[in-house]
Amino acid sequence: MRLALDAMGGDYAPANPVAGVVQALRQYPDFTVILVGDEAKVRAEVAKHDLSGVADRVSYHHASQVVEMGESGLESVRKKKDSSVSRAIDLIKEGKADAVVSAGHTGALVAAATIKLRTLSGIHRPGLAVVIPADPKGFLLIDAGANIDPAPEHIVGYSIMGSIYVREILGYKEPRVGLMSIGTEASKGNEFTKSCYELLEQAPINFAGNVEGHGLFKDPVEVVVCDGFVGNILLKTVEGLAKSLFQWIKKEIVKSPVRMLGAWLTKGAFQAIRKQTSTDEYGGSPLLGVNGVCIKAHGNSSPTAIKNAVRVAREFVAQRVNERIVEAIDTHHEKLAAQ
Amino acid sequence: MRLALDAMGGDYAPANPVAGVVQALRQYPDFTVILVGDEAKVRAEVAKHDLSGVADRVSYHHASQVVEMGESGLESVRKKKDSSVSRAIDLIKEGKADAVVSAGHTGALVAAATIKLRTLSGIHRPGLAVVIPADPKGFLLIDAGANIDPAPEHIVGYSIMGSIYVREILGYKEPRVGLMSIGTEASKGNEFTKSCYELLEQAPINFAGNVEGHGLFKDPVEVVVCDGFVGNILLKTVEGLAKSLFQWIKKEIVKSPVRMLGAWLTKGAFQAIRKQTSTDEYGGSPLLGVNGVCIKAHGNSSPTAIKNAVRVAREFVAQRVNERIVEAIDTHHEKLAAQ
Repeated sequence: MRLALDAMGGDYAPANPVAGVVQALRQYPDFTVILVGDEAKVRAEVAKHDLSGVADRVSYHHASQVVEMGESGLESVRKKKDSSVSRAIDLIKEGKADAVVSAGHTGALVAAATIKLRTLSGIHRPGLAVVIPADPKGFLLIDAGANIDPAPEHIVGYSIMGSIYVREILGYKEPRVGLMSIGTEASKGNEFTKSCYELLEQAPINFAGNVEGHGLFKDPVEVVVCDGFVGNILLKTVEGLAKSLFQWIKKEIVKSPVRMLGAWLTKGAFQAIRKQTSTDEYGGSPLLGVNGVCIKAHGNSSPTAIKNAVRVAREFVAQRVNERIVEAIDTHHEKLAAQ
Repeated sequence: MRLALDAMGGDYAPANPVAGVVQALRQYPDFTVILVGDEAKVRAEVAKHDLSGVADRVSYHHASQVVEMGESGLESVRKKKDSSVSRAIDLIKEGKADAVVSAGHTGALVAAATIKLRTLSGIHRPGLAVVIPADPKGFLLIDAGANIDPAPEHIVGYSIMGSIYVREILGYKEPRVGLMSIGTEASKGNEFTKSCYELLEQAPINFAGNVEGHGLFKDPVEVVVCDGFVGNILLKTVEGLAKSLFQWIKKEIVKSPVRMLGAWLTKGAFQAIRKQTSTDEYGGSPLLGVNGVCIKAHGNSSPTAIKNAVRVAREFVAQRVNERIVEAIDTHHEKLAAQ
């Protein structure tokens, strides 16, 4: 696989993208990487690492601009043609790379990928698919914010793409799809989800009906579909609450030496939970539905998170996820046409 | 205050509603209660308690039906005219009670209150207002699920009602209102929230712009407004995740005796957090905007939660919250008309 890495994307760029890809180069022998971004800065960062044995798998592609957090993702495609994320996508378009990993501006990645690569045949809008930790295993949330005002048909696309992704990449057999709503009965929901519900009943998936927040974290369905507005709120709320709960625990612990001793004795438990709930482990979130492999890593990605995003990109290419999505959508449309 | 208690509402009815109101009768000398529900069952439950000194403040109102969880709230008003929640609302309408507390079916309470009591002058739809724990103090989420497909104007009503409620009942000075969205910039959001944003800028509130999930649990704004679909998902997701995280911690702790010892030493910290995050302490959630005082307690309310819901009802009546809402809405409409 030939990876284009947005070396300037994310809160800790270029340090963490570079450190992460160096880890990945050592761990996975089967890919090469093009580091996209301000070449002087990226080379200076790379110089901090020992590249012996892997240096010949690294090349550079200069990009003079970076999309900043406050900017409009859509406008960035036009106004910052030489941004690291746009140039990384260009490399896919030009056939010089097989996949992009970026920890930068989500909207810019979504816009650049959608405009430059277009969507897969039969898919109208891409969706950002994020794994949310749960017990005993995480579920895939799609869409986590790529498509803010979708049509019900887009949700059907998400359900099919999500099912294929969790089967091929997460190894979930016969995945079920739940529709995010406010009650498990079919009659519960808003006008939008009620329309989605009817379409999902016809879709070539294991539709499990509505799911609600109480059911997300213990034995959840494998794929949860929703519009990008609800999905983004859900994702950020889950991240915010988990972070705050651990901070509250810490704040209470440090109030007494006895509690601090107790915390030290239980630290293995908390490490296990941190690992279980860490976004680092799941690596990147694929933008499903674009005609190319685009993996979004979290803005605050650690080197480990970047390494795992590279792993996801490798598996996505190797499992031919996009080809399988196109096949599934084709079959679905043929069936609908025959009805 | 004359309280009508839905004695048959909730997962543990009539036991917990009865036990909770007995606690409240002892703690607050300034109210009387009408226990609404199957009189034989309710009297049998009351007989388990010592009512000495408070018995003359308790009366009964028979209601032969209960709205079950799977039923449609709206249909229940027509089909189960003799349900405990409908009869409790009737008592307000007939001037025999000042407030209702129910831990039963939310939709049935919302429908019965809206149909029988109507909305306050100038308010088109009621909203369920729930306090969500945060650090250092909780925020009010409105609407948590009363109004699933609202118009932007309804959100303005929520912002005004929520501001008055947190000022009068929670003692928050100069409360700010945030609009639940997917980015703090004004340009972020879906079509619906963008319409809401414009109206909220004109509303007689301290509008703080958009808020997102990352900002909800540490120093949040005092009031967060959203449509009832998003609010209900948010509420249940927060409850579900908090519960699961504590279960995961417990599961890891019991894996070793050392960890169990450590947990015993830290248990004060966890008790403090449980108290901070417990819905019991905040008591009931008011249905703001109906022409009457209706407090929804959680379906799984403990006796303490019921007692605190009674406390909220008392304060709501004493602070004349509804009168203040009507005044604020009147002033707002006069200003708009004068523009």
